[in-house]
Amino acid sequence: MPRFLDHASPDFEAAFAALLAAKREDSPDVDATVAAIIADVRARGDAALIELTARFDRVTLTLQTLRLRPEEVAQAADEVPDRVREALELAAARIRAYHARQIPDDAEWTDDAGATLGWRWTPVGAAGLYVPGGLATYPSSVLMNAIPAKVAGVERLAMVVPTPDGALNPAVLAAARIAGVDEIYRIGGAQAVAALAFGTDTIAPVDKITGPGNAYVAAAKRRVFGKVGIDMIAGPSEILVIADSDNDPDWIALDMLSQAEHDESAQAILVTDDAQFGRAVARAIEARLETLDRRAIAGASWRDFGAIITVPDLAVAAQLSNRVAPEHLEICVADAEAVAARITHAGAIFLGQWTPEAIGDYVGGPNHVLPTARSARFSSGLSVLDFMKRTTIARMTPAALRVIGPAAETLANSESLGAHGLSVRARLDRLND
Amino acid sequence: MPRFLDHASPDFEAAFAALLAAKREDSPDVDATVAAIIADVRARGDAALIELTARFDRVTLTLQTLRLRPEEVAQAADEVPDRVREALELAAARIRAYHARQIPDDAEWTDDAGATLGWRWTPVGAAGLYVPGGLATYPSSVLMNAIPAKVAGVERLAMVVPTPDGALNPAVLAAARIAGVDEIYRIGGAQAVAALAFGTDTIAPVDKITGPGNAYVAAAKRRVFGKVGIDMIAGPSEILVIADSDNDPDWIALDMLSQAEHDESAQAILVTDDAQFGRAVARAIEARLETLDRRAIAGASWRDFGAIITVPDLAVAAQLSNRVAPEHLEICVADAEAVAARITHAGAIFLGQWTPEAIGDYVGGPNHVLPTARSARFSSGLSVLDFMKRTTIARMTPAALRVIGPAAETLANSESLGAHGLSVRARLDRLND
Repeated sequence: MPRFLDHASPDFEAAFAALLAAKREDSPDVDATVAAIIADVRARGDAALIELTARFDRVTLTLQTLRLRPEEVAQAADEVPDRVREALELAAARIRAYHARQIPDDAEWTDDAGATLGWRWTPVGAAGLYVPGGLATYPSSVLMNAIPAKVAGVERLAMVVPTPDGALNPAVLAAARIAGVDEIYRIGGAQAVAALAFGTDTIAPVDKITGPGNAYVAAAKRRVFGKVGIDMIAGPSEILVIADSDNDPDWIALDMLSQAEHDESAQAILVTDDAQFGRAVARAIEARLETLDRRAIAGASWRDFGAIITVPDLAVAAQLSNRVAPEHLEICVADAEAVAARITHAGAIFLGQWTPEAIGDYVGGPNHVLPTARSARFSSGLSVLDFMKRTTIARMTPAALRVIGPAAETLANSESLGAHGLSVRARLDRLND
Repeated sequence: MPRFLDHASPDFEAAFAALLAAKREDSPDVDATVAAIIADVRARGDAALIELTARFDRVTLTLQTLRLRPEEVAQAADEVPDRVREALELAAARIRAYHARQIPDDAEWTDDAGATLGWRWTPVGAAGLYVPGGLATYPSSVLMNAIPAKVAGVERLAMVVPTPDGALNPAVLAAARIAGVDEIYRIGGAQAVAALAFGTDTIAPVDKITGPGNAYVAAAKRRVFGKVGIDMIAGPSEILVIADSDNDPDWIALDMLSQAEHDESAQAILVTDDAQFGRAVARAIEARLETLDRRAIAGASWRDFGAIITVPDLAVAAQLSNRVAPEHLEICVADAEAVAARITHAGAIFLGQWTPEAIGDYVGGPNHVLPTARSARFSSGLSVLDFMKRTTIARMTPAALRVIGPAAETLANSESLGAHGLSVRARLDRLND
């Protein structure tokens, strides 16, 4: 049974703290295995990749078949039903339009001292996109990772996708093609992350790796962090819905189940100011769970991590939501904007009952790669900025150096960094000659 | 002796690759020690902090003295010479002005489908700032880390600084005061990082930790990444100078030495289109090394990792610089902007001979916390954005859902995510009733 919490109850704080602290992820310690795999790929390159792929994916690759040929990609993409391809194209166009607005501005100005200052944004040179194989291959994730990179101006986008027992979802290749992925390799796991980070004879190294993966992929990304950039280490998905009684309980139930069905460790929380509505949603969830295809997964998630919380008013709802810092936040109340204005930590907000979270997973436009496990307290969803970096720029004139140089010299000397001080002093002396 | 490389030489590519690959950091594997320290702080809180501080810093703290009292901070700050305090204040004002321009804009728009989309930026709730103790305590680093956090709107900024044998640099406290740091604790090492990430009875946990530290601090930050946000793991400092013969060799020598004096693993590289000028800079460096206070450190850095590279023209200089992706890039040529326009990877650019890199370390305005070890390929210097996060926003209308909902349903079903599809379908059916 999911937990029912009432803010008015004397044990609420303890129950809510327990909900926040619930350990939802069962991530095995695979670090030693991953370290060995990375070392192997660094030492033996393609040979290691081929051997590890044979062992883990039961697929025999050669130097010629490691990378998919363009005609293989085209052919697979053609197998995708027209309706799906058209839906991917609509999604891609909307994701592209949203992310195009994220391209940051360069800046340059001259200040009172006469110093010209500013910054310039440039794209990462090459990015690698990890796409899980097997059952959980989501073409939508390919769009969500690849399009921001391409909008940022990344010239080379290499994708890796394992093909366990030779299986590869054609829709993933169709999405890659629509998004403009440049290279696709039939590899996965820690070995694929190592190949992207360090390169092999066949695969040139990249500068940044993004995309979801299992515990091995996550451990490998953490290990290569620093050598290349990585995105967040994603945890299980979560949704928090703030809803008043003026909603169809079945709609809210479906929205919550659409997180629960991702993963047994996913979490769906309803916060409502109407206890009776809360019970109605709980009943609707049970009813839907009887017929849902993924009822085993969704049911386990709901049973183990689901919660329905009753609050006296919507201000309290917002406070509790901020403590959860949910990946997805649906606000289904009369004045959703007023509640949204109180939200300080959330990955993505969906306003009003006509905005089911599933819209955001596919066609809304915003990215569906979002901070999980309370990390919305300090991080953001994937964006164009993840594929760009900023170079700061400064130009002094002799006059500007005269104004601010002496302070630099003073601080350098106070930090016992003599050459720093002298590099300023030598120039100031010339000005005084 | 530093390396002299000539782009025209047949073995240039091998020599340049060796320069890029030179292992400059000797980072001991302290991960097991750090894991034990973190576990201890999580288990025993303040008691562990006090015990570890006694062991590592030889300082006896109590629950009452863990945190510096405001009057202690004020008193120490008053000890700082007026000239230094005024220089810190000038630096702080300039850093604040530069970073204030980085505050990102929120956005909201309605698209053709009738969907209202956008995003909103909010500050991190609480940030922790690590400040090294002992010899390498730099008040300028306090300003560079604390001011962006405060400009971002971070409400609570907690600083940790170890006081080995009781020593604490008053200028560090003066800088903390000027920058608006809210809390200061006398702790350091992995134990301080653990306290900031997980909290103790005395220290509330933070959401983001920034600031430089030794191998223990770096390993601890890597371990708590995910629980909290962290900044880059910094490596040894580096500078690349592109200079033509129209420069004073002594100025360029001092600029290069001002990186070399930071650390025996620092790297200074000159790229010039005039071999004779290159030799003149090398002589000037040797001359300055005779009298420099930090000549032991700077000399080792220059001897082991320094390089002077001769190129046929400035376009090649820019290409080589991009392969290095230097933390600091000085461009001292007639048309510095033209060379800068060719730069794709660099942490910070300093234009023209009147802009010694040391200006950027203190009073220029841009941040001096910059990507090292070639990570400017994928990351940026510290900024206001490191202390903020973006929440995406979407609102559909019934009409918008009618336009884009069917594509979401198609994709959800193609990914076998039934509840996702049903959450859209239930609403579309209502519209068709």
